[in-house]
Amino acid sequence: MTPLARALFTPRRIALVGASADPSRLTARAQIHLRRHGFDGTILPINPRATEILGEPAYPSLDDAPGPIDHAFILLGADRVEEAIAACARRRVPVATVLADGFAETGAAGAARQARLLAAARAGGVRLMGPNCIGMINVTARTALSVNAVLAMEPPLPVGRTAVISHSGSLIGAILSRGAARGLGYSVLAATGNEADLGAADLLALLAEDEATDVIALFLETIRDPGGLRAAAGRAFAAGKAVIAYKLGRSAAGAAMAVSHTGAIAGADAAVDALLAASGIARLDSFEGLIEAAPLFARARPLPSPRRAVAVVTTTGGGAALVVDRLGLDGIEAAEVRDMTLAGTEPDRIAAALEQAAADPRADAVVAVIGSSAQFRPEDSVAGVLRAAARLADKPLAAFLAPDAPESARRLAAAGIACFRTPEAAADALRARLAWRAPRPIAEAGEVSAARTALAAAAGPVLDEAEARAVLGALGVPIGTTVLVADAEQARRIVPRLGFPVALKAVSAALPHKTEAGAVALGLADAEALVAALSAMAARLAAIPLRGFLVAPMETGVGEALLGFRRDPQAGPVVVLGAGGVFAELMPPPAIAPAPLTRAEAAALVAAAPLAHLRGARGRARGDLAALAEAALAISRLAALDEVAEAEINPLLVRPEGGGVVALDALVVRRAASASEEGA
Amino acid sequence: MTPLARALFTPRRIALVGASADPSRLTARAQIHLRRHGFDGTILPINPRATEILGEPAYPSLDDAPGPIDHAFILLGADRVEEAIAACARRRVPVATVLADGFAETGAAGAARQARLLAAARAGGVRLMGPNCIGMINVTARTALSVNAVLAMEPPLPVGRTAVISHSGSLIGAILSRGAARGLGYSVLAATGNEADLGAADLLALLAEDEATDVIALFLETIRDPGGLRAAAGRAFAAGKAVIAYKLGRSAAGAAMAVSHTGAIAGADAAVDALLAASGIARLDSFEGLIEAAPLFARARPLPSPRRAVAVVTTTGGGAALVVDRLGLDGIEAAEVRDMTLAGTEPDRIAAALEQAAADPRADAVVAVIGSSAQFRPEDSVAGVLRAAARLADKPLAAFLAPDAPESARRLAAAGIACFRTPEAAADALRARLAWRAPRPIAEAGEVSAARTALAAAAGPVLDEAEARAVLGALGVPIGTTVLVADAEQARRIVPRLGFPVALKAVSAALPHKTEAGAVALGLADAEALVAALSAMAARLAAIPLRGFLVAPMETGVGEALLGFRRDPQAGPVVVLGAGGVFAELMPPPAIAPAPLTRAEAAALVAAAPLAHLRGARGRARGDLAALAEAALAISRLAALDEVAEAEINPLLVRPEGGGVVALDALVVRRAASASEEGA
Repeated sequence: MTPLARALFTPRRIALVGASADPSRLTARAQIHLRRHGFDGTILPINPRATEILGEPAYPSLDDAPGPIDHAFILLGADRVEEAIAACARRRVPVATVLADGFAETGAAGAARQARLLAAARAGGVRLMGPNCIGMINVTARTALSVNAVLAMEPPLPVGRTAVISHSGSLIGAILSRGAARGLGYSVLAATGNEADLGAADLLALLAEDEATDVIALFLETIRDPGGLRAAAGRAFAAGKAVIAYKLGRSAAGAAMAVSHTGAIAGADAAVDALLAASGIARLDSFEGLIEAAPLFARARPLPSPRRAVAVVTTTGGGAALVVDRLGLDGIEAAEVRDMTLAGTEPDRIAAALEQAAADPRADAVVAVIGSSAQFRPEDSVAGVLRAAARLADKPLAAFLAPDAPESARRLAAAGIACFRTPEAAADALRARLAWRAPRPIAEAGEVSAARTALAAAAGPVLDEAEARAVLGALGVPIGTTVLVADAEQARRIVPRLGFPVALKAVSAALPHKTEAGAVALGLADAEALVAALSAMAARLAAIPLRGFLVAPMETGVGEALLGFRRDPQAGPVVVLGAGGVFAELMPPPAIAPAPLTRAEAAALVAAAPLAHLRGARGRARGDLAALAEAALAISRLAALDEVAEAEINPLLVRPEGGGVVALDALVVRRAASASEEGA
Repeated sequence: MTPLARALFTPRRIALVGASADPSRLTARAQIHLRRHGFDGTILPINPRATEILGEPAYPSLDDAPGPIDHAFILLGADRVEEAIAACARRRVPVATVLADGFAETGAAGAARQARLLAAARAGGVRLMGPNCIGMINVTARTALSVNAVLAMEPPLPVGRTAVISHSGSLIGAILSRGAARGLGYSVLAATGNEADLGAADLLALLAEDEATDVIALFLETIRDPGGLRAAAGRAFAAGKAVIAYKLGRSAAGAAMAVSHTGAIAGADAAVDALLAASGIARLDSFEGLIEAAPLFARARPLPSPRRAVAVVTTTGGGAALVVDRLGLDGIEAAEVRDMTLAGTEPDRIAAALEQAAADPRADAVVAVIGSSAQFRPEDSVAGVLRAAARLADKPLAAFLAPDAPESARRLAAAGIACFRTPEAAADALRARLAWRAPRPIAEAGEVSAARTALAAAAGPVLDEAEARAVLGALGVPIGTTVLVADAEQARRIVPRLGFPVALKAVSAALPHKTEAGAVALGLADAEALVAALSAMAARLAAIPLRGFLVAPMETGVGEALLGFRRDPQAGPVVVLGAGGVFAELMPPPAIAPAPLTRAEAAALVAAAPLAHLRGARGRARGDLAALAEAALAISRLAALDEVAEAEINPLLVRPEGGGVVALDALVVRRAASASEEGA
């Protein structure tokens, strides 16, 4: 365990700065909770107006407190926190948790205050939890360093091998109380608050080394450090721990999908999905799923090649149907359902049926569904599940209890068996377990210096099409042959080398919607047509600063794709691949993967993308999907060009197999420009 | 209350045929349960080998039992049930519940046995519950006439004003025990078993008149009588009762959607959705949603025009976010979120905030989210919810408790406030409440005699295209001008009247896939081209019995739709409307509505259908959607032609607004043919 982890999670000497002697006040709670839940280290209450607080000697200031201090919990108001951090720095306190709110969560003034706080902490060598942080509960080490109201629970808190990291302090309480009611325990539960310094990714990295933890459950409201989260999840996986997550923001996706621009067409939530999948983090879709799934992931590894099927043993046909129907919505089948209603629900029969079901090579996991006996005779059919569990080898086992049966749930939990109260949570957890994959290796962007040069040569915040083509071409995206001409005369001279017919486009960063502006002419059959179109276009766009005209041969192919790159505020750099042209609106939303890609990831992205029109169905030719994957790989290298906010090729023409792909349009936006757009 | 309802739900003299004196046996349970849960009427145990059973006088046969008998519960094995029904008939017992399994649920032999049983019951004037029926629990009347294992619960059973009708007996137990744990009670809980005679629709019709019931909750595994269900739901609604349902089979839809044939492209589950919506039945998607939603529907009416938004008052930001995020997935917004963490969570403040939120005209409903105080101080913030509830007028109110807080849940339930344990169930129930509509008037098919005549004139089980056009045209579907010719010579003579270019198709019921068979030629520019194509086609199809060749003018329009009719095994006759031609595979699945349609329903079907390509987006012309609705109305009249199993027009060409629609192909299948196809 690192010194930081020790100071955070197992402090032995804790200063409570701003402690209160009035037990009804929030600022008294941390001290009460610590002692009530068995903390046997030293508490140093700091309060200038007391010499003793709740039976412990108190000190007027941190400077007056004796001996070393592992962790300071600062309970003062927002306006006094900065001063307290300075005192921590003087006393070389390695970590301070800041309770006060009124920081970045409240707007610009609060954000400025938070920035000052962080600067003070950095300057003083103090690591920060919070501000707006309710504190941390180390159940294993009996250190309830938190003002969380849930600590009004009767001791002892339920001990287990699941750690919880949560952006929401109050949901820590919900998780702890719901877990306790089911017999599920925890190692550490930490709220992160505003994450000015230490955030979820940092805590995950620290808990990756925690010997008391098998599963780390994340409750995320946002993701502030996607790269850090992915790296930390990789460390946890390497240490034999599973990471599971519930992430708010599922529904933003629906709203964003309507707009036809990469930044919005690819929903933020889909990007988060892609990041979590690449990180080897199993995402749960239901709140109780997060709580109840933990045993399914404890000391477990992802299934090598799931068949997406389960075997069900049940004492209630209706109860089994609830789970099977729900699983079916996620495309998971029931390889078999053994209804024991007639065969008998004695423990030995249930155990034998579960063992036989586990031996079914078609099934990835076994589900036991228990009916009324779970309510009235936990010693009966639930006992059969317990008996079988010990002999099931490593096939995942989940139990769903149809009636209200808390005693049976606790018996199963005590034996480490995942037990679900609702068919929805059971199906959610099994889906997440089957979908769980090892973290993917983090790709290298490779050589991007040519693209960097091309980018440097471009002028404004939004590159014009010729500049954008140069950048993307330098990364290896096929951009075809195009000619940039200044006027009709130059066009007449140069273009015939391309061969007719050609397409003509005016080039200007001030023309984001070329077709609508009359800045595109297609299918120009000969030089006369080209010159006529160019002259008319020049006249039409006289008011717009043009850099010239781009002429390209007319291309034909199987169909069009949309290939994009953007920096998602939560998921970081991602590649986006969907249907292009008129199909973009009709097809499902694009597939997304974190950038840069590996070659294998690029192939997987193409396989996952909504490109039915390119896969050769219904007598159509099959598109060159290998070339499409190479183009995705190429554009993903933009991740290494920090200056680029987003890029989009729409359409990217996909020719028949062996024919390659070619960009018919190109957009590249610098990061500054994008940020100002967001602010607008 | 009708005599049948009285015999079913409030029998005073009950015969238990095959009662056992051994309390460990299933056949002893009904008697034990009845007395244990307070039945104070007469029990007549029937057993040839006993004169007394569990303290009550027993009789060797029904014939020997004294006095009238309201209800016989037949506990005998399957092979002795028929004889017992005959005895019931002799004694003029109005209703018999049959426990035995081994009937239609076990295959052909069991189905034959069930048919004999039903015939015996009908002949004897005995109405049947079951077979394979666990019995009925009338909580209000303290009549636990059931062998349900849940009746091992401590008396008294929780009384409430929600009735439950369930295909699954064991889920009655799950509902009762889960409800009891939340303080939710029931009036009647009835399992239906195999529904040989009385089914869910019949019980719903009977409970529509029950004065002890406000909400009727259905757990449906299938729907055997869609028309009866719709009629019964209408009666319940008219009597001021709400009907809510959980229906298994959501996931079959996904699998069926892949196939491009009306019968399958329109998922069975979507048809069930359409039936339930037309019936005014609110469908829940989660099992606990069904249980917990009941108070949201008690003594309630559908919202006249929901804004699809709620106002949230919360003492936990994280907890509120869970519900809001989930609601967002269903397109329901949070009009406002009042976080009371800082303002204070005293009852008066919570009550005032809820009243203010309820006054928000943008919100359809109010959601109270309660954090840790629900766990430790139910007298605090939950008390605020109780206080506000009495003053909220008729705006629906739902509470979500973030922690494990059964005592708070019970307090809310006792006050009739809908209380949810999971954000998922809360969102599910609110979605269902907002989506709930009054039952739609059942449309009349109108005059179909001309179509009946055209159908009678057609030959085989699958009509050829000319025959199908005649039937659909007689209903009022625009079928355009087509000419049926026997040979090239006739074509040369007649066709020029149509005007060129024309399309040519061979006509045969043996040609379901005309394009693939080379039986279609398009864009024939003149008489010579037509004659050449027809001659070549005749030669190519020499082996196939042709009725002739159909010639039609080439048509152009905005785009194509698929318009179909079928008899869904669960939902009954439905109309299906989706994208046609190449778009059929790319667009979302079609919209569905029960047939026949009213004019308003036809317009709503068009509005709900995935027809983006016909709505004039992105500079395209807008299609004649009014004419499309009229075509849907016309095809829906097939509901009155029992002989027709299904029909499909694909493509139905939609011309620009004012231009109408025209069928470019037509398929009609008779019912017998469809049944044999299913068997294949």
